[in-house]
Amino acid sequence: NVKGDRLWESLMEMAKIGATEKGGCCRLALTDLDREGRDLFSEWCKDAGCTIKVDKMGNIFARRAGTNDDLAPVMTGSHLDTQPTGGKYDGVFGVLAGLEVLRTLNDFDVKTEHPVEVAVWTNEEGSRFAPAMVASGVFAGVFDLEYGLSRADLDGKTMGEELDRIGYAGTEEVGGREIKAFFEAHIEQGPILEHEEKTIGVVMGAQGQRWYEVTVTGQEAHAGPTPMARRKDALVAASKMVTEVNRIGLDNQPFACATVGLLQSSPNSRNTIPGSVFFTVDFRHPKDEILSKMDAELRAFCKKTAEDGGFEMEFEEIWYSPPVEFDDACVKAVRNGADTAGYGNMDIISGAGHDACYISRVAPTGMIFVPCENGISHNEEEEATPEDLAAGCNVLLHAIVERANI
Amino acid sequence: NVKGDRLWESLMEMAKIGATEKGGCCRLALTDLDREGRDLFSEWCKDAGCTIKVDKMGNIFARRAGTNDDLAPVMTGSHLDTQPTGGKYDGVFGVLAGLEVLRTLNDFDVKTEHPVEVAVWTNEEGSRFAPAMVASGVFAGVFDLEYGLSRADLDGKTMGEELDRIGYAGTEEVGGREIKAFFEAHIEQGPILEHEEKTIGVVMGAQGQRWYEVTVTGQEAHAGPTPMARRKDALVAASKMVTEVNRIGLDNQPFACATVGLLQSSPNSRNTIPGSVFFTVDFRHPKDEILSKMDAELRAFCKKTAEDGGFEMEFEEIWYSPPVEFDDACVKAVRNGADTAGYGNMDIISGAGHDACYISRVAPTGMIFVPCENGISHNEEEEATPEDLAAGCNVLLHAIVERANI
Ligand SMILES: NC(=O)NCCC(=O)O
Ligand SMILES: NC(=O)NCCC(=O)O
Repeated sequence: NVKGDRLWESLMEMAKIGATEKGGCCRLALTDLDREGRDLFSEWCKDAGCTIKVDKMGNIFARRAGTNDDLAPVMTGSHLDTQPTGGKYDGVFGVLAGLEVLRTLNDFDVKTEHPVEVAVWTNEEGSRFAPAMVASGVFAGVFDLEYGLSRADLDGKTMGEELDRIGYAGTEEVGGREIKAFFEAHIEQGPILEHEEKTIGVVMGAQGQRWYEVTVTGQEAHAGPTPMARRKDALVAASKMVTEVNRIGLDNQPFACATVGLLQSSPNSRNTIPGSVFFTVDFRHPKDEILSKMDAELRAFCKKTAEDGGFEMEFEEIWYSPPVEFDDACVKAVRNGADTAGYGNMDIISGAGHDACYISRVAPTGMIFVPCENGISHNEEEEATPEDLAAGCNVLLHAIVERANI
Repeated sequence: NVKGDRLWESLMEMAKIGATEKGGCCRLALTDLDREGRDLFSEWCKDAGCTIKVDKMGNIFARRAGTNDDLAPVMTGSHLDTQPTGGKYDGVFGVLAGLEVLRTLNDFDVKTEHPVEVAVWTNEEGSRFAPAMVASGVFAGVFDLEYGLSRADLDGKTMGEELDRIGYAGTEEVGGREIKAFFEAHIEQGPILEHEEKTIGVVMGAQGQRWYEVTVTGQEAHAGPTPMARRKDALVAASKMVTEVNRIGLDNQPFACATVGLLQSSPNSRNTIPGSVFFTVDFRHPKDEILSKMDAELRAFCKKTAEDGGFEMEFEEIWYSPPVEFDDACVKAVRNGADTAGYGNMDIISGAGHDACYISRVAPTGMIFVPCENGISHNEEEEATPEDLAAGCNVLLHAIVERANI
């Protein structure tokens, strides 16, 4: 079994990098803090006897040799970047659970036939650079390298520039190599396991996502002498669209999620009618047909609202990530691990996207969920218990060892 | 008559300070650019033989002596600060029209019995520091000095600090002295004069304003795995409130104006449900009763929306500026000036607040409007013709001379 204390201590140590006042973490992708987190992880892996490689997307691979080192590695991992007001576990758990597996293999001097690698995927969150999971996406051939490196934050800085700046623009080609199996451990980020009182979620797949960027342009004018009838208030139009996004989510239950997470109004001055508003939309559903229906509803509403009010509109779908089904054998390895250890478990569909979703296109893949308090994530108050995290890590250990010796 | 060319040249010279790509101006209150504008104005006034005094709110007074210099001055002026995406005329015209009046008096060697002062009021726009007209408000005793100096921008910098920094924290007491009459020339910032094909608006008064700050707090959570039914999406709640602000404006016609000019969503990340939203509301109406009715409607709606959705809310009215009526004699002096010069003119109520609104509490006050293109202001495309501006300046000259010799 893994050492739960050691895993917990590593999590708490990593959480110091970018720690926020409210007990969370702000370690945005490719910032100086992200570099610090990466450096710490690399140190730890070297101490555990691993070799480290970094690819051109900044993905880090820490490798523990197999008895037959020419075989394809069994891989695990997740991400170290966080939301602006993120927690201590989202992503980090999957990375440090991987490290804890390596440390445990070392403790018991276990040899595996296949090498085992722990991956840190760049910019999983999609918060600083959209879309999410972009670097595992390049690894899986979903995006090309150029696309990945040219993703820009709201200040116009690209991933390529920022990788150079923090010294994580590696030399390895991105992807294109065989992986025996990929497992990712993660907190659930939703309320189901807690509600069902299960320790382990055996992840069957993930729901589909569509992300949009919308810019509505009206006309700036003085808030005082400009009669209501003459206005083209971009924020009024955008607010209707935000309300409609929410309506679409509510009317496509069960399962639909619909969110405007980011909105910027310009010029953002108290007594000026907003001239333009930029906002993003995040739609999710496990069924592709419903996701398409939501898409059609949004497009129709935005088009009509813009036309009726005389607004210009740019409307772009910037990301489509179809629903994912994980590999049968990997799913079984996870369920098997949970059953063997006697952890209460259930099958579950992931509400969030994960690097595993993209890796599943190029390798047999499975995921392990553990509960988080009140189902809350992307929040500084995100919490998980040391016991549940250790349990998830044990299941990961089991699944990896099973796959690495076949 | 004034020299229209000289006025225009001065306007264009001032417009270089903070000039934007789209032909507007961004010269926010108490920035380095505001200092540059103030310095340039002060230079010009010294060249015109004036003495300059600066008070503790940074208001600048350029004085041309009267034949009886112990008499109370006739004063004119406006502001040099602009909106973030402001124009070249809003405020600046009133300041430079005042300067052009002084220059014209010099040209023709006209002596006035009362001294004539041109004032530059600090932070009229209320964009960087809320509320608007805060420094003329202190001058008029509406706010105390401490309140004025402690107004802070969104970064927490106070007017006091910023006045010190740019070297415009003067030593003169703010207000408390007699003013014979105050006139302010300004672009209309609305569409009425243009529509009625009049050159001069004889301003009878200004509508009332109420400004609010609202913070709605829900709960940050992951946009993917958080079911719609469990969400407290602060942006969804805020969007309903923005829509309601607009509804209140539309349903209190004629005359009501209602605007959410500034909105900030937090943490503003694409895949995080917004945890809190801060926004401002700007309500206007010429009738106080209707303004109170709009206030009641807004409070009731926001309270109910917050309660129904389980949101916390801070709701604060940060500014109330009652409807203003200008002084009969000053209004007549303006109308008289326009009639004498043969300019088509009409009575008008100001939709915007102006420094003149506060000064009217401590001195007989009048205002002169000239048209602006398409009624557009608080926009980089703000335009006015050299002819109309010269006409407004001539009316100002007439009114000042009339009052300064009684
Ligand atoms: N796990 C996680 O927070 N992923 C970010 C991508 C998404 O929003 O689903
Ligand atoms: N004239 C002008 O733009 N004043 C700003 C204060 C207001 O919003 O009325």
